[in-house]
Amino acid sequence: MYITKISIRIHYALTDQMGVVYHGHYAQFYEIGRTEAIRQLGFTYKDMEAMGIIMPVVDIHSNFLRPAKYDDLITVITTLREMPVHHKILFHSEIYNEEEQLLNAGDVTLYFMESKTMTRCAMPANLKNKLQPYFEEKG
Amino acid sequence: MYITKISIRIHYALTDQMGVVYHGHYAQFYEIGRTEAIRQLGFTYKDMEAMGIIMPVVDIHSNFLRPAKYDDLITVITTLREMPVHHKILFHSEIYNEEEQLLNAGDVTLYFMESKTMTRCAMPANLKNKLQPYFEEKG
Amino acid sequence: MYITKISIRIHYALTDQMGVVYHGHYAQFYEIGRTEAIRQLGFTYKDMEAMGIIMPVVDIHSNFLRPAKYDDLITVITTLREMPVHHKILFHSEIYNEEEQLLNAGDVTLYFMESKTMTRCAMPANLKNKLQPYFEEKG
Amino acid sequence: MYITKISIRIHYALTDQMGVVYHGHYAQFYEIGRTEAIRQLGFTYKDMEAMGIIMPVVDIHSNFLRPAKYDDLITVITTLREMPVHHKILFHSEIYNEEEQLLNAGDVTLYFMESKTMTRCAMPANLKNKLQPYFEEKG
Repeated sequence: MYITKISIRIHYALTDQMGVVYHGHYAQFYEIGRTEAIRQLGFTYKDMEAMGIIMPVVDIHSNFLRPAKYDDLITVITTLREMPVHHKILFHSEIYNEEEQLLNAGDVTLYFMESKTMTRCAMPANLKNKLQPYFEEKG
Repeated sequence: MYITKISIRIHYALTDQMGVVYHGHYAQFYEIGRTEAIRQLGFTYKDMEAMGIIMPVVDIHSNFLRPAKYDDLITVITTLREMPVHHKILFHSEIYNEEEQLLNAGDVTLYFMESKTMTRCAMPANLKNKLQPYFEEKG
Repeated sequence: MYITKISIRIHYALTDQMGVVYHGHYAQFYEIGRTEAIRQLGFTYKDMEAMGIIMPVVDIHSNFLRPAKYDDLITVITTLREMPVHHKILFHSEIYNEEEQLLNAGDVTLYFMESKTMTRCAMPANLKNKLQPYFEEKG
Repeated sequence: MYITKISIRIHYALTDQMGVVYHGHYAQFYEIGRTEAIRQLGFTYKDMEAMGIIMPVVDIHSNFLRPAKYDDLITVITTLREMPVHHKILFHSEIYNEEEQLLNAGDVTLYFMESKTMTRCAMPANLKNKLQPYFEEKG
């Protein structure tokens, strides 16, 4: 399992007239979370695009428990529970407020694709190598 | 069953550097679809808020099949498959491009809540009355 | 002078917790206005990009008089007051609500650039030809 | 003069299909900059709203020199050049990339207003007191 954490300060643009963060913006929080998850492996999603691999989102499920509010410093915890096989990768995200209440949980599935041919491909080997240690069986 | 349709032109702000609509923006398309669904009943969500009822989103599931692109005129088809019971309502959305290809399908669940007390409540009677004819059994 | 008009319905995502449209979103309204201005000439900005010409924004000035609100049907009036010379074009936008009150006025300056070389260029001839009749002196 | 600095990582949602940050998003960078400017005084804009004072934007001027790109870590330098008089305050923002190139410069004017009456008011005394030391004449 590979788990990372990042904090995001809620700015005004993210709120709506219900006085809370607009539900559609959580997809951005998941995005920021998984980008930092990749960065903390010593690699960036930007590098991957430069290598000709893109990761389009194919599925999102998002569950809203409590609202995030203006100026909240939320924490996004991003978890990769299983080593991806083939072209598919699933990130699980949990979003907490400063009182450590769970606000939102999301699952985002992405594909690895070659941008040139727009065909699915396996996870790049250098990313795989960096992730491997987190999924090794202790025994 | 109650079905409505609305078109949206994709502007530049909605695209990302993959050259397609950013996945996080589809929640807005669903929102526009269900708002128009309510408006076509001769009622508005704005009226409902003025009456003290808000409808926070509690769950979204979104499946991405093909990308929407800049300047596409997409069609959002919003379907209410079942008459809501209690405080919960589920809208199903399908998004098509001009070639009538299905781009995206989404399910959004919302609650009816009293804004004053922030407690769940039933669907307002006037909305219920407008919807009733679409769910009457024939026979 | 070349003037066009388009209406935009304010959806929830555009509001903020002040209960009005977030100021940063007006740039999108100007964008939608000038895109439709080009479309009404029988041409699209999308065509222009396909021809290898892009139009980055280099300057925006925006003045806020009254707030736009949720569910307002605003009108964006886009005016090209002068025929562009060289690589620069300036669109003036005015935004009105349904009571015909002026909400906002904006000036957006863009450059014509060749996307391949990223160098400034003149307005494409076909766009120029379409615009010419609106700027002919009556005499 | 009162100057503060904050860094923002550019995420995918902020890019457009030109491969750069969409021009309309810079207003958010200014907002984040001035919010942090206030926070570094030991005060928050959130506190001010709780006290019944809001700060709507009345004017923005934004000049674009170079594009910000995906994954850039931009720096927003926010400057208050003059102590506000009456109800008006002007923040100047400059945005730099990691190579310390100036990407964008913006001026944002806001009003202090009482949210209850929606009338203009003076800057709250506690904010004024915190700012005063930065504008004292040396002599």
